[in-house]
Amino acid sequence: MTRALVPFDAARPNTRLAPVLSREERCAFAEAMLADVLGVLDDADGEPTVLSTVPLDDVPAVLANALVGVPVEVDDRPLTEAVNASLAAADPEPASPFAVVMADLALATPAAFRRLFDAADPAGADIVIAPGRGGGTNALVVRHPDFRVDYHGTSYRDHRRAARAVGASIETIDSFRLATDVDEPADLAEVLLHADGAARDWLLDAGFALAVEDGRVRARRE
Amino acid sequence: MTRALVPFDAARPNTRLAPVLSREERCAFAEAMLADVLGVLDDADGEPTVLSTVPLDDVPAVLANALVGVPVEVDDRPLTEAVNASLAAADPEPASPFAVVMADLALATPAAFRRLFDAADPAGADIVIAPGRGGGTNALVVRHPDFRVDYHGTSYRDHRRAARAVGASIETIDSFRLATDVDEPADLAEVLLHADGAARDWLLDAGFALAVEDGRVRARRE
Repeated sequence: MTRALVPFDAARPNTRLAPVLSREERCAFAEAMLADVLGVLDDADGEPTVLSTVPLDDVPAVLANALVGVPVEVDDRPLTEAVNASLAAADPEPASPFAVVMADLALATPAAFRRLFDAADPAGADIVIAPGRGGGTNALVVRHPDFRVDYHGTSYRDHRRAARAVGASIETIDSFRLATDVDEPADLAEVLLHADGAARDWLLDAGFALAVEDGRVRARRE
Repeated sequence: MTRALVPFDAARPNTRLAPVLSREERCAFAEAMLADVLGVLDDADGEPTVLSTVPLDDVPAVLANALVGVPVEVDDRPLTEAVNASLAAADPEPASPFAVVMADLALATPAAFRRLFDAADPAGADIVIAPGRGGGTNALVVRHPDFRVDYHGTSYRDHRRAARAVGASIETIDSFRLATDVDEPADLAEVLLHADGAARDWLLDAGFALAVEDGRVRARRE
């Protein structure tokens, strides 16, 4: 079992999706993605805890079901600060890793998370990073007590630097599914193409379908 | 050794990069990426052949070096037609796989190609696909004699359908490095972040550097 913290900003759903989804829709879609991530983590022998900016009351059934047995910690501080408080409390070490997984990884599969967790087994690296597109850090496993996160700017580079600074070894996981955080309209096509959970169902119910435009596949609303 | 066909359109370098690179620059950058892909394929025990729309004379030294010992077949037909002619001639079968690898996979590593080739060993699937972003097919390995490609539209879906139609088993490789074909300005940041070959050197020489804009990392020209 690998402890996995899933930060979730329920109050400010991703504004980059505003061109195609209303605020309420972005909330509902984010909740569906969180439900998917929790289910997949569970299938990968992860032990998820949600770190939410607000209490998760009155959520849709799909998320309520996924939250059964999952602790929810509420912390309204900015992402980096809140995650680092959890990291410090978790006291990760080689035999007791602690993962941080973004809530919008709608393409994640148990196999992808298993690759992440396996790379951080006691014989593996101290810090395992699954980079996201655009220099982000979509998932990481920490086995070193002194490592702290910084999600501002090019976090992939910053986390590699931070690992070296505390003498921690680093491994990178090469996964398209973990690299794809769904936060721009173009990403919705990836969900329709490669996912099969609640987020994909939500998009289909909302009227999205794949369409080829200008030689590229897009998710277009009917 | 896995035979690997690398289609290369020397005459029409990617127009989606036109906002940031001139035509001559796009040609030079494409040649640097091809050099990288050939070198990495070689390191992964691939046996590359370039399928070019025009003869590759008078190319920069970095590509000329990478082309030493690499056959170049010239075929000016559209991509799908040209690749299918090569596939038919190659007569792939379980013990004699044939790969098709895009020339703009500047993030590819030997480890990523090994995962692709290993999944297609005789005990593996008949068709192994590394999907690209936007529904494309960035690399595939064919071990079934009747499979043909179709790169129009959502080729990832179409190739899965085509495999089923000839009774071929399918496996998908989950690789960020193979999913990232470099054909849009935003992709240049991925090259600067994750590559270490001729394409990255070319971008640095051309004055590109990473910059954080609007919370996202971009490759910006000085």
